[in-house]
Amino acid sequence: MTTIAGTDPRTGMTTDITDETTTDEVARLARAAAAAAGPFEAAGRGFRATLLRAIADEVESRRDLIVATADRETAIGPTRLNGELTRTAYQARLFADVLDEGSYLEATIDHATDTPMGPGPDLRRLLVPIGPVAVFGASNFPLAFSVPGGDTVSALAAGNPVVVKAHSSHPATSLAAFEAMTTAARRVDAPEGVLGIVFGQAAGAALVADPHIKAVGFTGSLGGGQALLDIISRRDEPIPFYGELSSLNPVVVTEEAAAARGAAIGTALAESFTVSAGQLCTKPGLVFVPTGDAGDTLAAAAAAAVGDAGAPVLLNERIFSSFGEISSRAEGLNAVSVLARGGAPTGEGFGVTPLLLSIPAAELTARATEECFGPMTIIARYDNTDELHTAIAALPSSLTGTIHAEDGEIERVSELTNLLRAKAGRVLYNGYPTGVLVSWAQTHGGPWPATNTLHTSVGTTAIRRFLRPVTWQNAPEFALPAELRDSYDTIPRRIDGRFVVPTQS
Amino acid sequence: MTTIAGTDPRTGMTTDITDETTTDEVARLARAAAAAAGPFEAAGRGFRATLLRAIADEVESRRDLIVATADRETAIGPTRLNGELTRTAYQARLFADVLDEGSYLEATIDHATDTPMGPGPDLRRLLVPIGPVAVFGASNFPLAFSVPGGDTVSALAAGNPVVVKAHSSHPATSLAAFEAMTTAARRVDAPEGVLGIVFGQAAGAALVADPHIKAVGFTGSLGGGQALLDIISRRDEPIPFYGELSSLNPVVVTEEAAAARGAAIGTALAESFTVSAGQLCTKPGLVFVPTGDAGDTLAAAAAAAVGDAGAPVLLNERIFSSFGEISSRAEGLNAVSVLARGGAPTGEGFGVTPLLLSIPAAELTARATEECFGPMTIIARYDNTDELHTAIAALPSSLTGTIHAEDGEIERVSELTNLLRAKAGRVLYNGYPTGVLVSWAQTHGGPWPATNTLHTSVGTTAIRRFLRPVTWQNAPEFALPAELRDSYDTIPRRIDGRFVVPTQS
Repeated sequence: MTTIAGTDPRTGMTTDITDETTTDEVARLARAAAAAAGPFEAAGRGFRATLLRAIADEVESRRDLIVATADRETAIGPTRLNGELTRTAYQARLFADVLDEGSYLEATIDHATDTPMGPGPDLRRLLVPIGPVAVFGASNFPLAFSVPGGDTVSALAAGNPVVVKAHSSHPATSLAAFEAMTTAARRVDAPEGVLGIVFGQAAGAALVADPHIKAVGFTGSLGGGQALLDIISRRDEPIPFYGELSSLNPVVVTEEAAAARGAAIGTALAESFTVSAGQLCTKPGLVFVPTGDAGDTLAAAAAAAVGDAGAPVLLNERIFSSFGEISSRAEGLNAVSVLARGGAPTGEGFGVTPLLLSIPAAELTARATEECFGPMTIIARYDNTDELHTAIAALPSSLTGTIHAEDGEIERVSELTNLLRAKAGRVLYNGYPTGVLVSWAQTHGGPWPATNTLHTSVGTTAIRRFLRPVTWQNAPEFALPAELRDSYDTIPRRIDGRFVVPTQS
Repeated sequence: MTTIAGTDPRTGMTTDITDETTTDEVARLARAAAAAAGPFEAAGRGFRATLLRAIADEVESRRDLIVATADRETAIGPTRLNGELTRTAYQARLFADVLDEGSYLEATIDHATDTPMGPGPDLRRLLVPIGPVAVFGASNFPLAFSVPGGDTVSALAAGNPVVVKAHSSHPATSLAAFEAMTTAARRVDAPEGVLGIVFGQAAGAALVADPHIKAVGFTGSLGGGQALLDIISRRDEPIPFYGELSSLNPVVVTEEAAAARGAAIGTALAESFTVSAGQLCTKPGLVFVPTGDAGDTLAAAAAAAVGDAGAPVLLNERIFSSFGEISSRAEGLNAVSVLARGGAPTGEGFGVTPLLLSIPAAELTARATEECFGPMTIIARYDNTDELHTAIAALPSSLTGTIHAEDGEIERVSELTNLLRAKAGRVLYNGYPTGVLVSWAQTHGGPWPATNTLHTSVGTTAIRRFLRPVTWQNAPEFALPAELRDSYDTIPRRIDGRFVVPTQS
């Protein structure tokens, strides 16, 4: 049996944490999840809301232990990790609210009526859970995108058992979070098998191949996602794979914005691409800045901030070596110049030097727009609008696109909005893409290669990924889910084509 | 250049219709579709509703020509084809209503507010079109699931240009319907490139591989769907494939229902599995009937109706030979007996003999539950509930599951509902699965192998397949789509977590 070890990224020292999950055990967990699916759905929305709130409570009640463990395994630091834990609990409770509110069910009633095609039957539609979901934890969010994270709580909210594949970057954190979740599950008397966890790459592959698993949620690299997609393509039954994969997150600064507040933007950008050691999916990886004095001021402010930055520690050896490779390659490109370097690492662990590069926008190549996970960004200097628009049009799609502009730049901002909206799931104005609020209107997604789905993985609508529609035709009332009975009136429903919303207190 | 010929299934005689589309022409059409995407979306919901209504009008204005052409190419008969044309026009107009109503946009506004994670930005979310869609026409619905069919109008409604691959079973019908659509498009001055059509298998493959195509809608065989999925897996950018693929559509008759109305059920079932020559995706392919006298009465009535049935003509040579193979294989199974045969075909064209088989439910095998497109069904006789439930649990998933039961069979019907709901997208009571109303609450979908999607392909929510979410963060009002501005109040929106529905007249 292979041992799963955790690594302290600050020192590179490893500690044995648990055993790799055997394929027999993976199969057992998937079977148990499948067996739990019926009882878990039957327990109802109210029960699942209670479970999610209990999970939030248990995670919060172990805040100190979980944050300390995660910090030791990720070097992310207690401030960000405390915030992440707060967000993780908030997210679980928000999905409990989604269950209470009930419109996610898309309850729809068409009473029997005459149609141009003849008499129509009584049809009633509701979204139902799809079955056990495999969730792959992310390296860079040991809580909010991992064991107790958004994929897990949205799949649970939808009514599906979840088996998590713990990320190798934080096995002890994963265990601690899982322990909080199973305690919550026991406290509310959830069906056995609703929660499972596996460790090790082979176990993850076996999980995705298991016929009881009906969908996969994944946040990670394009390569990792592709490997799981290959496993899915060999299954008898194909299943949805929701992958959040890669994102450059371009930022565009207009001439006027640079002139009005170039230094402030430069300083804030440096913060945005170095926070969490640049290991955020929404890190700005490419910043379009005009040539000329205003742009120079912006670049100089960013360079000064980077020069003052310390040497952050990356999450793991793979990210560390990948950062070294990609940043060296970018630095070595012909048209690229180095604007600033941050502090030098001690030599122990996975510390790296933040890096700010510059390139003429006209010289941008696919190499220069490769995602680089870690504290590096490239400033692309543009001479005119044509050059800027051509460069944006050539970019790969991202999770976000950001515009910095001044009031009154209506035509310019409208054009940039159109260009960036075609390539992103979120368009921001005069802000920075890092920081993704969990809310009803959030989209954390985007065209390939940002993701491979038409759904968000953050925010309330993430639940739709784990549901499928069912219609009951001429059903006797007792055979209908409660939410589809005529007398039920506490959730928004569409009745004969019109939304009917409960009276709100 | 290869010629595309239509075949009269009643005689097997072919007529040249058009040329196979060259791969250069496919590429040109896909480019034109991509170029039209921006202007088509910008033209707005109102414009697209007008286009859809114009399409409905033009299709109806050519009713006689289109029905006569389709009948010659499909042998489906003018009654069903007239009904199908009516449904096709109704469907286009219903999607126009969906556009007017506007809730499909899922417009969501979260005003800036304080959160446990700190101040949250203003976030506004809307679904936007994904880009050009390739639609593969189905053999068995030359209108409603083909050129002017549900995939096409839902993709257009969403705001996407469409390139249709005409089915080889009805090229002249496809041309006539396409002519109606392009006339409508010209009449309302739609952007060039919004509609395209290609002919030939190689052209279809090139279309799916084309990088400008962003989704594929397909109704057809599992094998055909798999071939397109293989092409998609070789694309640089994976795209969603919405396939409606295969369906057995089990029907369960309880002992009490058989006793109360066995003969009527038997007669109606025979009608349901022979209508349209049994070439409906929702044809009941397996009927669970209790052993004993009541079940015997049901089987005898079905057998009598089948014995009186003529020899219908199948759509094309592939379906004709496939029906011969699969029905012979089923008939030859050890435990199977022949209950009835319909009339014998004349020998010309693709006429076949309807076939009613019987098997003990305990003897059901994968061979016996293989989908057989055409006028054949199998009655599976069950001795008791355990046998019935075991047999249902072993079935592949379907588009539909049907229960015939009497009032008061509450426990039995509840159990059967649970069993069938797990395996179907629509559960029907005391009816027959053929006939799929286009409405708000409809689901035409189901777990694999019925489909490979979590969406319906019939009914208003089919539009969701061709949309993706975008969120605007702290956007100036002018940069927002009209539907996300504070002052816009004519569509249902979620504002700060609550549904706000316009006052309904």
